[in-house]
Amino acid sequence: MRTFSMSLLCCLTLLLAGALVGCGAAPDATPDAAAGADPLPSWNEGATKDAITTFVRAVTTKGGASYVPPEERIATFDNDGTLWAEQPLYFQLAFALDRVKALAPQHPEWKHTQPFQGVLEGDSKAIMAAGKRGLLELMGASHAGMSTTTFESIVADWLATAKHPRFKRPYTDLVYQPMLELLAYLRANGFRTWITSGGGVEFMRVWTEEKYGIPPEQVIGSTIEVEFKLLKGTTPVLMRLPKVAFVDDKQDKPVAIHRIIGRRPIASFGNSDGDLEMLQWTAGGDGLRFCLYVHHTDAEREWAYDKDSHIGRLDKGLSEARQRGWTVVDMKQDWNRVFPFEQR
Amino acid sequence: MRTFSMSLLCCLTLLLAGALVGCGAAPDATPDAAAGADPLPSWNEGATKDAITTFVRAVTTKGGASYVPPEERIATFDNDGTLWAEQPLYFQLAFALDRVKALAPQHPEWKHTQPFQGVLEGDSKAIMAAGKRGLLELMGASHAGMSTTTFESIVADWLATAKHPRFKRPYTDLVYQPMLELLAYLRANGFRTWITSGGGVEFMRVWTEEKYGIPPEQVIGSTIEVEFKLLKGTTPVLMRLPKVAFVDDKQDKPVAIHRIIGRRPIASFGNSDGDLEMLQWTAGGDGLRFCLYVHHTDAEREWAYDKDSHIGRLDKGLSEARQRGWTVVDMKQDWNRVFPFEQR
Repeated sequence: MRTFSMSLLCCLTLLLAGALVGCGAAPDATPDAAAGADPLPSWNEGATKDAITTFVRAVTTKGGASYVPPEERIATFDNDGTLWAEQPLYFQLAFALDRVKALAPQHPEWKHTQPFQGVLEGDSKAIMAAGKRGLLELMGASHAGMSTTTFESIVADWLATAKHPRFKRPYTDLVYQPMLELLAYLRANGFRTWITSGGGVEFMRVWTEEKYGIPPEQVIGSTIEVEFKLLKGTTPVLMRLPKVAFVDDKQDKPVAIHRIIGRRPIASFGNSDGDLEMLQWTAGGDGLRFCLYVHHTDAEREWAYDKDSHIGRLDKGLSEARQRGWTVVDMKQDWNRVFPFEQR
Repeated sequence: MRTFSMSLLCCLTLLLAGALVGCGAAPDATPDAAAGADPLPSWNEGATKDAITTFVRAVTTKGGASYVPPEERIATFDNDGTLWAEQPLYFQLAFALDRVKALAPQHPEWKHTQPFQGVLEGDSKAIMAAGKRGLLELMGASHAGMSTTTFESIVADWLATAKHPRFKRPYTDLVYQPMLELLAYLRANGFRTWITSGGGVEFMRVWTEEKYGIPPEQVIGSTIEVEFKLLKGTTPVLMRLPKVAFVDDKQDKPVAIHRIIGRRPIASFGNSDGDLEMLQWTAGGDGLRFCLYVHHTDAEREWAYDKDSHIGRLDKGLSEARQRGWTVVDMKQDWNRVFPFEQR
């Protein structure tokens, strides 16, 4: 089963690479210096942590050369691989596969129709052979054909029962403790924290407020076409259609940020080449800016991958980060704790 | 010139009808009863004003049956005809025509190319004859081909110099004083106020924070395609392309609300049939909801129009509002002041 998952993952993520891709308001708080306790205890002392706190102090110090008023303190975060794990496959993709399996009894024809047969039998070659069309069929079957309200329930039910194959825990346990601290630290310093993810916006909103403290209206992601309908002529519903509307990745991350937030972030956080344009857009603004890449370097506690990974590939972004002096988190070195469930 | 503008308006709005269509966070404040002064002085006493204050008291009274926590107090407002005037033609369309005239010296070919020739000569028949393609060419010439930053400057410059043909004042003077009071009243009661307009989101954001107190991230509107580019390989810009991405009107208003806010409003405000689905979506949620239509009934101080108007047609919406007991503002009766510049 593990072997199946891993090979399935590889084929699906290759497909995904082609077809899809992968913050609560706070008062103007006093800078962190005023607080006694370390707001970032899971971050080891060193250059990375210093870079974060130095930036936050600079933009929140009234009268300082780099002061930024609270309404402009916008911080945007990629989700998969930046705020929670993304291995061995995007968690939303795990949801899609589980959903196909759950729906299979109602679709006896799937036993001999690709790519569904491939999912049910763990035949990754068959899924690969179905190509983009096959992936879109999988996404359509698992993500569309129901109202937005029903979809939210389906996601919530899955999150409550599904277990991550390696950690045998709910997927939402795999959020990064240091990033939770960073989100809270930024908000305590008057930032608004936004998610800007290639993941589906409706998949994320179900749990992002509880897990990250990021409210629905600060979650930007990929979207599916949705249709307004009046059931029986009176009851309004939004029905999910099997058609992708917007893929929030690469060059379209700054586009979505501009369209939805309407302000340029002063800080952005990512982990892959899919986040590079968002970081470039952030860095290109006037005044002090902060760009950070999470580099997955810890095969023991998490995973180690970068330029050769099908998921969360970090190649061009890493070169540019080093060249421009952006902050790069070495997960193994910089984080003394990765997941909240780890013993301290 | 006036005659020209009026006939031009008619033809353009007919075209528009086919081709396009057309909230600041606050702490959990004490309900209005605690405040001494009337928060809605431009609203005459009566059923309309009572309906508003009764609703607000109900959803903000802790322990009450209809209490709604602040994070769910989402109020969505149409803009044209609801928060500011929209006659004799949508102000953004006036901007487009003025922009074509301003650009004409750089485009000598426009003197004999429709629909530009029609705009320059005031020949509404010629513009009509160019149909939707012509309208899209006008929008493309006036709204695209520049960076988002440049576009914002162009809009700001226009707003600073253009005058409304009837009132001889800047267009932004034609916001409705009673609605300004309503926005402030809702925010003082813990609501977040959002714009959900068929107008262009980037056209609105230039002035909505100053005039309405609604920040960029709470403005939803129609969008144009935008492309991320690195100038000289290093300087990121977002370039506006001559292609409509999303028209925020009718059945797509609830879609955009769902995608961007991710919460269902508990109160919605509109003035035309283009707002009906937004009001239906709002009314369809659980618990107490508030839907309001502004009915333009005051030909002296503003304009009187509804079911036969090419701009802001209110026909089906008015019937449904009366049938369902939604609040309908009779502008002539309910507002003792329409614009901020009126003498009291």
